[in-house]
Formats: sequence, structure tokens, C-alpha cells
Amino acid sequence: MPSLLQLDSSMDLERSRSRAVTAAFASAWREQGADFTVTVRDLHRQPVPHLDDADLHWAAHLRPAGSAPSVAAAARQDGLIEELLRADVLLVGAPLYNWSLPSTLKAWVDHVHVPGRTAPFDGATQPLAGRPAVVVASRGGSYDAGSPTEGQDHAVPALQLVLGNALGMDVTVLTTNLTLADRVPALADQRGRAEAELAQALTDARELAVRLAGA
Amino acid sequence: MPSLLQLDSSMDLERSRSRAVTAAFASAWREQGADFTVTVRDLHRQPVPHLDDADLHWAAHLRPAGSAPSVAAAARQDGLIEELLRADVLLVGAPLYNWSLPSTLKAWVDHVHVPGRTAPFDGATQPLAGRPAVVVASRGGSYDAGSPTEGQDHAVPALQLVLGNALGMDVTVLTTNLTLADRVPALADQRGRAEAELAQALTDARELAVRLAGA
Repeated sequence: MPSLLQLDSSMDLERSRSRAVTAAFASAWREQGADFTVTVRDLHRQPVPHLDDADLHWAAHLRPAGSAPSVAAAARQDGLIEELLRADVLLVGAPLYNWSLPSTLKAWVDHVHVPGRTAPFDGATQPLAGRPAVVVASRGGSYDAGSPTEGQDHAVPALQLVLGNALGMDVTVLTTNLTLADRVPALADQRGRAEAELAQALTDARELAVRLAGA
Repeated sequence: MPSLLQLDSSMDLERSRSRAVTAAFASAWREQGADFTVTVRDLHRQPVPHLDDADLHWAAHLRPAGSAPSVAAAARQDGLIEELLRADVLLVGAPLYNWSLPSTLKAWVDHVHVPGRTAPFDGATQPLAGRPAVVVASRGGSYDAGSPTEGQDHAVPALQLVLGNALGMDVTVLTTNLTLADRVPALADQRGRAEAELAQALTDARELAVRLAGA
């Protein structure tokens, strides 16, 4: 059963473009056949708590002597990691909030990036190596190379470091910029670009879902 | 009454270096006189929930028609913003977790950066302009210019964008690197540097507290 894990983190349940793009991907995935399953984890509607014990950053055998994370916190982490390990493809809706990840998505990241368990540390522990991860980046403004805001997106690079470098996943980023063009007067002249990028991201998402489903 | 708002976000209550440096700063601040007050907000021990309504990103007059954030969420946000506005100096313990902010600190950021209220949007709303903010950055590894990890810290630049560019605060960053040198065998040969940087950060924190208290 080819399985997709879909994470959404936008706070906006009505106008979110990251949610529109993840929905398009998930829809195309489901259309590949009755055995193509989707697990949806909505990190906004049902938030994962902040990781509550520093020792949970590490695999059990790497924790300091006397470490005793709470049973509930460890079980929550186990559940999130096992859910991720069951997925053939990971899909992450990642809106840029205040130049970095939504706190809800960061809380998920802090649970699943565990050196010695999901990432290499004292051995080649990288159970997700080579698996596809699709990051749907939506950004209120634009961050074009050569513009004054180049490099001010601190969400996508952090996800690439965790999912790509640490977990070894094969990361593709689909981006839709200027999501605030409808709302912010100073961006009004860029509405056309915003719409075109959204349309392209929706098309790309569907095509990528079909391609990954066939892989 | 010169007032300091001290935010801590490290999950580690025993060995945290960001907590050691913020404590040194706060201690020196208190020593300036009985009227030098410190408000401590520990974002790990008493976490701020994730912001739960996208409309709270915006000042009330900028929210879409029909917007109705929950009274409790709006009151929580008001409380955090008012606490920040009361502070003459902001002190932020900001450990780097998985290449970005702790989710707890990001949740605080998402509550206090509000265009049209704490940051300019349709007017010059920037009530914290010029006020000092001290960011205590602690990082497990090192991110030196010219090294392969240069640019992989996505916490400090995001804080500079929010506190500096958006809120207009005067940001100073005190950094202590290689906090994992005691623990990670591959970093063992850098323990000397780690200790020296911690000692320097503690000294700098005390000196900066005295300077800002006298300003």
C-alpha cells in the first residue's frame, strides 16, 4: 500500500495556499488507485506539543546517565517517528511565518530529528534515506535572488537541513510566493505573479504526485 | 523602575549555556540597584501555546471582515505584547535546535510580531523602536564564516529580522558555540574553544547589562 504522510501547518483554514497545494498533491496521489493511502496530520488543528525534555533530542542509548523523559512524551515521539517511517512519501505544507517555520511545524521537526535513531550519529542510522519529501513553501512576499530579501526565508533551508542532510530524504520544494499580494497594498501590482505561481505549484504538485506514485 | 524581560527557551534545565548567560546578564542587571527589576518568562517550563488564529498575525484593524479570534487567544497575545512593551531591555535565550528556533520561542515570536501594532504596516507603529534586545545564541556546533556550516544557523537571522528590522529594536547577539563539545566525540578537540567562548559570553553579558542599565 503506497502511503503518503501529509502534514499541514498553515493557521489559515480558508485561504491557505500551502493547504491548496498539499491538497492537490494528495488528491492526485489518491487517484492513482484504491491502495494509495493518505495519512493527514494537521499540525494546526491538532498541534503537537513542544518537545518537553532535551534528552528526547537523542536516541535512548545516547542520553546522559539518569535521563528519564516522561513516558507520555517518549510515547508521543515514538508515535510521530513511526508514522513518518511508515510513509513512502512525506508531504509538508510549510508556510513562512515571521521568516521561519510555524511553531507547530517546528515542534514536529524537534520530535522526529533524533541523532542515533533517524539521523546518523554513532552509526549509519538513517532509515528514511532516499525517500521522497515534498516541501510546499508558501511565502507572503518574495525572496528572489538578487533582491533585498534574498536569503530571508529561514524555513525552507532549515527543512532541507533536517529532512535532506540529516534524515537523508530526497527533498523537492514547490514554492508559491506573494501569497499576501491580495491583501497588502504595496504588493498589489504583483497579484498576477502570485496567481501564476500558485497555478504552477498546483500543476507541479499533481505531476509530482503522479511521478512519485509510479516510482 | 528600569525593567528587564528575560526569556529563556532551552529545554535543558541543568547544563544549558544559554540559560547560564541570560542568568549572568540578569544577575548583573539586578546588582545595579533595588529598582532594577527582572521579569522572567520561561518559555520551556511554561510554554506559550502555538498561535491559534491566523488573524492574530495582524492588528485588529487589518483583519479581514468577519474575523473573530477567540477571546482567550487574543487576551494571551495582549498579555505577551504588553509585557514586552513594559520592558526597557529584552533578553532572549535562543539555543539553536535543529538549525532553527526552539518551537517555544517561535510561538512567542508569532504572538508579538504584529504588523500595524508592534511593526509598521499602514503607519509608523513601532513602539519598541530603539529599545535594546540582547539575543543569547547557543549552538551545538560552529557556524564560522568560510566553514561548510556557514549560514546554517537559521535562528539568529530570523530573530534579527523580527526584533531588529520589524520591531526596530537595537539587537546585540552574544554567541556561545560548540555547546556539544563535551558530548559529541567528533567535537572533543574543540572543548577548549567551547569553554573560552562560554567564558567570554558570560563576561560580555555582565558588561552589557551594566552598560545598558546605565544608558
